[in-house]
Amino acid sequence: MITLTEALIEPSEIRFFSGSSHPQLAAGITRYLRVPLDDTVIRRFSNDNLYVQLGASVRGRRVYLVQSLFPPVNDHLVELLMMIDIARSAAAKEIHAVVPYFSFARSDKKDAPRISITAKLVANLLETAGATHFMTMMLHSPQVHGFFGIPADPLTARPVFENYFRPRDLSGTIVVAPDVSHAKSAGRFARNLDLPVAAGNKERLSDTSVKITGLVGRQVQGFKKAIIYDDEIATGTSVIEMSHLLAHNGIEEIAVVCTHGVFVRNALERLSKTGEITEIVTSDTVHIPVDRRTSKLKVLSVAHIFGEAIRRNYCRESIDGLFVYGEE
Amino acid sequence: MITLTEALIEPSEIRFFSGSSHPQLAAGITRYLRVPLDDTVIRRFSNDNLYVQLGASVRGRRVYLVQSLFPPVNDHLVELLMMIDIARSAAAKEIHAVVPYFSFARSDKKDAPRISITAKLVANLLETAGATHFMTMMLHSPQVHGFFGIPADPLTARPVFENYFRPRDLSGTIVVAPDVSHAKSAGRFARNLDLPVAAGNKERLSDTSVKITGLVGRQVQGFKKAIIYDDEIATGTSVIEMSHLLAHNGIEEIAVVCTHGVFVRNALERLSKTGEITEIVTSDTVHIPVDRRTSKLKVLSVAHIFGEAIRRNYCRESIDGLFVYGEE
Amino acid sequence: MITLTEALIEPSEIRFFSGSSHPQLAAGITRYLRVPLDDTVIRRFSNDNLYVQLGASVRGRRVYLVQSLFPPVNDHLVELLMMIDIARSAAAKEIHAVVPYFSFARSDKKDAPRISITAKLVANLLETAGATHFMTMMLHSPQVHGFFGIPADPLTARPVFENYFRPRDLSGTIVVAPDVSHAKSAGRFARNLDLPVAAGNKERLSDTSVKITGLVGRQVQGFKKAIIYDDEIATGTSVIEMSHLLAHNGIEEIAVVCTHGVFVRNALERLSKTGEITEIVTSDTVHIPVDRRTSKLKVLSVAHIFGEAIRRNYCRESIDGLFVYGEE
Amino acid sequence: MITLTEALIEPSEIRFFSGSSHPQLAAGITRYLRVPLDDTVIRRFSNDNLYVQLGASVRGRRVYLVQSLFPPVNDHLVELLMMIDIARSAAAKEIHAVVPYFSFARSDKKDAPRISITAKLVANLLETAGATHFMTMMLHSPQVHGFFGIPADPLTARPVFENYFRPRDLSGTIVVAPDVSHAKSAGRFARNLDLPVAAGNKERLSDTSVKITGLVGRQVQGFKKAIIYDDEIATGTSVIEMSHLLAHNGIEEIAVVCTHGVFVRNALERLSKTGEITEIVTSDTVHIPVDRRTSKLKVLSVAHIFGEAIRRNYCRESIDGLFVYGEE
Amino acid sequence: MITLTEALIEPSEIRFFSGSSHPQLAAGITRYLRVPLDDTVIRRFSNDNLYVQLGASVRGRRVYLVQSLFPPVNDHLVELLMMIDIARSAAAKEIHAVVPYFSFARSDKKDAPRISITAKLVANLLETAGATHFMTMMLHSPQVHGFFGIPADPLTARPVFENYFRPRDLSGTIVVAPDVSHAKSAGRFARNLDLPVAAGNKERLSDTSVKITGLVGRQVQGFKKAIIYDDEIATGTSVIEMSHLLAHNGIEEIAVVCTHGVFVRNALERLSKTGEITEIVTSDTVHIPVDRRTSKLKVLSVAHIFGEAIRRNYCRESIDGLFVYGEE
Amino acid sequence: MITLTEALIEPSEIRFFSGSSHPQLAAGITRYLRVPLDDTVIRRFSNDNLYVQLGASVRGRRVYLVQSLFPPVNDHLVELLMMIDIARSAAAKEIHAVVPYFSFARSDKKDAPRISITAKLVANLLETAGATHFMTMMLHSPQVHGFFGIPADPLTARPVFENYFRPRDLSGTIVVAPDVSHAKSAGRFARNLDLPVAAGNKERLSDTSVKITGLVGRQVQGFKKAIIYDDEIATGTSVIEMSHLLAHNGIEEIAVVCTHGVFVRNALERLSKTGEITEIVTSDTVHIPVDRRTSKLKVLSVAHIFGEAIRRNYCRESIDGLFVYGEE
Repeated sequence: MITLTEALIEPSEIRFFSGSSHPQLAAGITRYLRVPLDDTVIRRFSNDNLYVQLGASVRGRRVYLVQSLFPPVNDHLVELLMMIDIARSAAAKEIHAVVPYFSFARSDKKDAPRISITAKLVANLLETAGATHFMTMMLHSPQVHGFFGIPADPLTARPVFENYFRPRDLSGTIVVAPDVSHAKSAGRFARNLDLPVAAGNKERLSDTSVKITGLVGRQVQGFKKAIIYDDEIATGTSVIEMSHLLAHNGIEEIAVVCTHGVFVRNALERLSKTGEITEIVTSDTVHIPVDRRTSKLKVLSVAHIFGEAIRRNYCRESIDGLFVYGEE
Repeated sequence: MITLTEALIEPSEIRFFSGSSHPQLAAGITRYLRVPLDDTVIRRFSNDNLYVQLGASVRGRRVYLVQSLFPPVNDHLVELLMMIDIARSAAAKEIHAVVPYFSFARSDKKDAPRISITAKLVANLLETAGATHFMTMMLHSPQVHGFFGIPADPLTARPVFENYFRPRDLSGTIVVAPDVSHAKSAGRFARNLDLPVAAGNKERLSDTSVKITGLVGRQVQGFKKAIIYDDEIATGTSVIEMSHLLAHNGIEEIAVVCTHGVFVRNALERLSKTGEITEIVTSDTVHIPVDRRTSKLKVLSVAHIFGEAIRRNYCRESIDGLFVYGEE
Repeated sequence: MITLTEALIEPSEIRFFSGSSHPQLAAGITRYLRVPLDDTVIRRFSNDNLYVQLGASVRGRRVYLVQSLFPPVNDHLVELLMMIDIARSAAAKEIHAVVPYFSFARSDKKDAPRISITAKLVANLLETAGATHFMTMMLHSPQVHGFFGIPADPLTARPVFENYFRPRDLSGTIVVAPDVSHAKSAGRFARNLDLPVAAGNKERLSDTSVKITGLVGRQVQGFKKAIIYDDEIATGTSVIEMSHLLAHNGIEEIAVVCTHGVFVRNALERLSKTGEITEIVTSDTVHIPVDRRTSKLKVLSVAHIFGEAIRRNYCRESIDGLFVYGEE
Repeated sequence: MITLTEALIEPSEIRFFSGSSHPQLAAGITRYLRVPLDDTVIRRFSNDNLYVQLGASVRGRRVYLVQSLFPPVNDHLVELLMMIDIARSAAAKEIHAVVPYFSFARSDKKDAPRISITAKLVANLLETAGATHFMTMMLHSPQVHGFFGIPADPLTARPVFENYFRPRDLSGTIVVAPDVSHAKSAGRFARNLDLPVAAGNKERLSDTSVKITGLVGRQVQGFKKAIIYDDEIATGTSVIEMSHLLAHNGIEEIAVVCTHGVFVRNALERLSKTGEITEIVTSDTVHIPVDRRTSKLKVLSVAHIFGEAIRRNYCRESIDGLFVYGEE
Repeated sequence: MITLTEALIEPSEIRFFSGSSHPQLAAGITRYLRVPLDDTVIRRFSNDNLYVQLGASVRGRRVYLVQSLFPPVNDHLVELLMMIDIARSAAAKEIHAVVPYFSFARSDKKDAPRISITAKLVANLLETAGATHFMTMMLHSPQVHGFFGIPADPLTARPVFENYFRPRDLSGTIVVAPDVSHAKSAGRFARNLDLPVAAGNKERLSDTSVKITGLVGRQVQGFKKAIIYDDEIATGTSVIEMSHLLAHNGIEEIAVVCTHGVFVRNALERLSKTGEITEIVTSDTVHIPVDRRTSKLKVLSVAHIFGEAIRRNYCRESIDGLFVYGEE
Repeated sequence: MITLTEALIEPSEIRFFSGSSHPQLAAGITRYLRVPLDDTVIRRFSNDNLYVQLGASVRGRRVYLVQSLFPPVNDHLVELLMMIDIARSAAAKEIHAVVPYFSFARSDKKDAPRISITAKLVANLLETAGATHFMTMMLHSPQVHGFFGIPADPLTARPVFENYFRPRDLSGTIVVAPDVSHAKSAGRFARNLDLPVAAGNKERLSDTSVKITGLVGRQVQGFKKAIIYDDEIATGTSVIEMSHLLAHNGIEEIAVVCTHGVFVRNALERLSKTGEITEIVTSDTVHIPVDRRTSKLKVLSVAHIFGEAIRRNYCRESIDGLFVYGEE
């Protein structure tokens, strides 16, 4: 666990605000940093326009705005843009947009004519509104980093997951990456736990339908336990298909690990009902209300990672150890 | 009525797309212009991100994008930003954002600390996305025009309403503006119909609660009919209060006229149930589904006004006659 | 009176310069702040180009430039742009343009085709030259705030006027706003002095000719004294017409109050010769040479308001109390 | 003389406006181009703000704005910035700023601390206002070209002067450049007329006081007639001193030639009263009212040069022959 | 083969220039388009600065600049930036940077601290210089598209290679992608030729040293011929290692295919000397001088693909068929 | 000699890196400043792309990057742009580009059609990459200063040369400027040493061939020793021609002084072999390897001048004394 070192943030130098998406994570970060979380008033005008007011003077201060872009993403995005705009026009010195889950990273290329590379568009919008620094976790592809004209720090949750699994008996366990083209992070995870790694070849038929090909079956033979390691789970369809494939090849227990547990529709229920899946481990970049959680779900907080990255940035220390370098 | 003059738009020079907010108005505009309305595919990824695809090549063409910003405004806004971005990155020659109802114009000043002049922010976002021209109708205040760095044309629906009332017997009728600080448009409407005008002094207690003060009562004495003329009705509260005040002072029949009929919650029902209100006249800048309309509601289309403004812009003719010059 | 609190500006951190328009006010501000006013050399080349030199190194410092845009406005504007440019290219850390009277705010909308929203243009020019912050007093309309891409602080002189009248016997006095569409500030002034308020309806026939309509007469009946409260007086025509109207309705003594006493041509003489006007109270945002002043004129300095706003900005304190929120 | 070739400007494609500085030259240019000169309304508000209105729709057209920056330069500059802004916000397709005399080119370097390279500042301001092309004549130094981010065409008046002198008997004539560091243009002028050239070494003591040093005397010995060739004359002091020096060395007749005849204060009178000066030849980049002209003054129009450059630019022909390449 | 359709480029509308890197390809493109290739003068000043002159007027024209960024890449890049700058400042209407091989695409993410995402930097530099459109072939990763703020068209050479192999007897042939994470293009190539596909898992040990892992051996068993399909070959090390692996598993004949044949140092010789490699097929995005070519090398021109894309762009036709949508 | 004053740079506040061009000068500067010189890793990918890594965290720090642009200039330029980009995207607080020899300053005007004002282009590129301040020495023309949108400080090496010659017996010595149009710096040098000055009139026939005209011969008669004073020597041709001319007119000993000793090809050898030249004095803005130096060459370091300018900038002291004001 990262420990609180001695160089601290001076509370009077900063302001910390949360959008409406994830005040729980914002509170966790400020607790780690031992600074107050200032109020944000968010409501709607009768014509549906948002009304946002930051509850403390930002003049000449470093302002941190926490907003995670899970559904409803457009409301959360516009709210964030307004918060940035307010800080800018009220003469903040620095404006740090802390976006634990940057959903738009999924739209990172043109694989059809006349569509939007929305991740780049949103990066531009954040910069136009006035953000001077962007902090996020595990982008869908590492190139999205290059979409930002302002300094950007994509952090990694991997150490949190490694720390979670390290105390366990991991004999007979193999790490499985659902898609070979994003297998680097899974590879590092496996290496740090001294585990072997296998990769499927996910072929996306449509947004909600995928086919796992490749020789995963042969690769996992002889193992009893698997850890499926992915960056993001929305509908859970491909993980469930992978789980069936693994079970068919002799795997008896599967832990599912993902940084961003978006879990739309009934994904969490479907995953939890899949027999061979014994555990679903995710971070809190996306807020999952207590009443939607299942007994198999384990949510590990990354508040201290964001907190520590903010602290080091503030204290001008290198954040190398927290950064995700080119993980795909 | 504005007639179709001879200089026409060459269909191969342009592309015309509608966002999901108001395809009916977009269709009306293209009918007026005798050009096709191209397809737009709009759906959502499983993680709630929008997926937008323009259905025809825009390369080197003048592109017109119609999107009205009524609720859900944030979804409609992000959709519009993406459409603009697509046209820009696909090498469109010009990108005209046609926004019949620009709801954000209401947030045009700082009347409290640390809030956003959101109209300015959104103007910047549209420009960042790539819009080269902005067309709208009846901004909340004429200064909002100055928030745009690109050419902007705020049009007026007033002639449509004048044409509607002109054939009637208007004897004993007075025009009433609910708020004296936005009374110029009502004054021009009255003058063009040879009617007198009175103005209330709306004091906004909160977003949904207002008080009408001033001497409206005395001004309207002796009249039997009134036309309340406003730019936008959301909850309808102030119009209903004004109606009671007018009824109390001898007015027997009230026609309510507004450019933007936002009619949130049960506004339309409440207005329709107000006895002295005999008619509610609005334009179609905001889409009102047929099943929400009441028998007292009359919707007049402004499609031909947008169409004609687009035609003149295309043909490099002056649009002076369609422009709203400083109406407040 | 605002008192000098303990957090002070460190003189070595800043530089303070005055343009040629209003060194008196600049000196008043620096006296309040207890910092030196640095020299500015301003002269003309033989071809009429301005030559401006700032008299102290600005490298890495916060630079404050005071220039009020009263006549000759274009000379004062170009001078200010050059001062900003010099500070920027000489590596100043921050450049605060302090513009007590921003005359261009009057050109805030398009009420005729093919004219300039000059307030927006000038806001852009100031930003291009390198200003990082804009400070002014009482903009003609609050939306002009949104024309600035840099943080802007429109301050209010109202408390100065309130403090001036508060010690007096105000029985039988009514506050009168010449134009109902800019009556909010008059309303606040009246409320803070526990006085009633009435408003005329100024209809502008041309730049120099207006007509006061509305029911001012009836509103003021029974009062003996009036305070006409306006934001700016140039020719004084409408105030004089209003004064006659008030006198005709029984008002015996009139105090005229305005933030910006531009007083062009012989305005001050004409106002002073108007019998019922007993006093003309204005701030020193516009410089009035001693030899042009009349015995009825009272100039109240706002140097301490600008000084205090600068101090709070420097010390990162909120300037809420000095800010004009949406006064029209 | 440049003849009107066949490719003409289509009048409906363009708009041509003149600022208040030099309608005579603008009229000359439009006559050459056989296009109409549209109206510009320019007046002042009572608070000294300029009011400018362009008198014809510019929508989608190429707009040409002629404004020469001689005294009062700041008024002329702000007027030009407003004209550009109007054209931009009214959706002009191209905006060509035609500035025959760009006085600010004199402020092209920092020869003292904390002064403004005003030529660069003004280039930025013109671009911010919306100019898309800049056309001028004989910049003070050729590097000023590089201050413009938009395409810029500095033209030369030299051929006009050559054509004027060519028919004469030039035997015994020498061309003299007052300052060796700006002698290239004089050299070309001399070469094209098969004349020898000499150069003085002007040392500027102050803005209005210079000393001619160097060996001019020896260089001109044996000649009877001289043509002093300079880019700009303001006070005329250095030309008069040079004339005395030449007379002292045997020159009997002097023709003074300069592109920009600014002639401030009584320069024209002083030059005309200098006995050895028999003729003062200048272009009409600066307007000299008829009543200020003297009998020795000859003004040669450059309207056709600007006209031809505009025509070639419009018709996409090269303007090489009209361009001043690196003349110093 | 793409045939020349009827809508042609009007030669007088455009200018076409080649940098010094690849005049052969530029000539091929202009031949396809039936337009002239204009001259470019490129030499060096004595202090090593480049001197570049475009040999024909670009005023108001669409300008196409062909420059491929193979070694010496920095010289070629600066040359291209200067050509763009010249066209921009000489008032070109459009500036199309045609960069067949964009070598910087390899630097597309931060896989170590404090390195440059150089592809993004260069995209910004091209935009700053004045490029309005970017055309290239087969970017290293499809996300690099999003680094460009101007419209960008990454084209594909795949159809050229497919046409080359289609007439052959391909029985017993398998397509092999050296790295599974960039296997999409190989997959499409295989599918269009009705061939199976296998993929290695290239692990990069350093810039010049890689290890092929995965089960390629087992996948290719039973095949006699293989086509190794890659996007770019520099040192050829990984292809040679893959070839040995394939030979070891029974493959007898190997054709190597790559879009960008950079072939640094002695790569071409080493590949040609590898016995099982019978043919090396590449495009001419990189120029390979005749004297460096070997008998096994086959260079297929992509001039007609660039030509056709330019033609369609000019004629406002969709270039969908030539575009590389998300190939990795 | 400038002495180290008391206000020092706090090493933890800054980072100092050298590009590959001139680590010797960078080391000299850091020695003067008593701060460490951090590591820079610079190598090339196999496809010739540069790989650059800064060896210490720059987060929130003031970063100084030293790179002199002598041959190979394009490699050195791209390297510098990448270093700036890295610092920017890694959240440096300030980025100071220290470019002792800015070779591009030679391309400062358009003296032929369709060439690049490359000095302006490169200034833009440096700003795009992220530089916030530019420091250099003796620009080719003082107007180049105006090409920079960021603060720029052109320093002068003149005091170093003056200190070098002052202790000598300078009787019978004259200072000679090779080109009268860049003679101001030579004039100041002469004045400070109480020496007379003469100037040639260099006419550039081509980049490598010049002709000295003018009356230098007569001016130097009676002197025995000359100091030729120039800003930059590349091929040395004009200095050698000037030396012959001086020898022909009685000068027996010549010291050649130049700020930038580029000395391309065999310039240094040719100068050294010229008999009348007894000494070649230059600064170390350009690195001359020890094995290329001749016995007549004297290299004087300017490290302390850059160091002192950096120190003053850091400590917010004026750098007036080090600045080159308008020397031509």
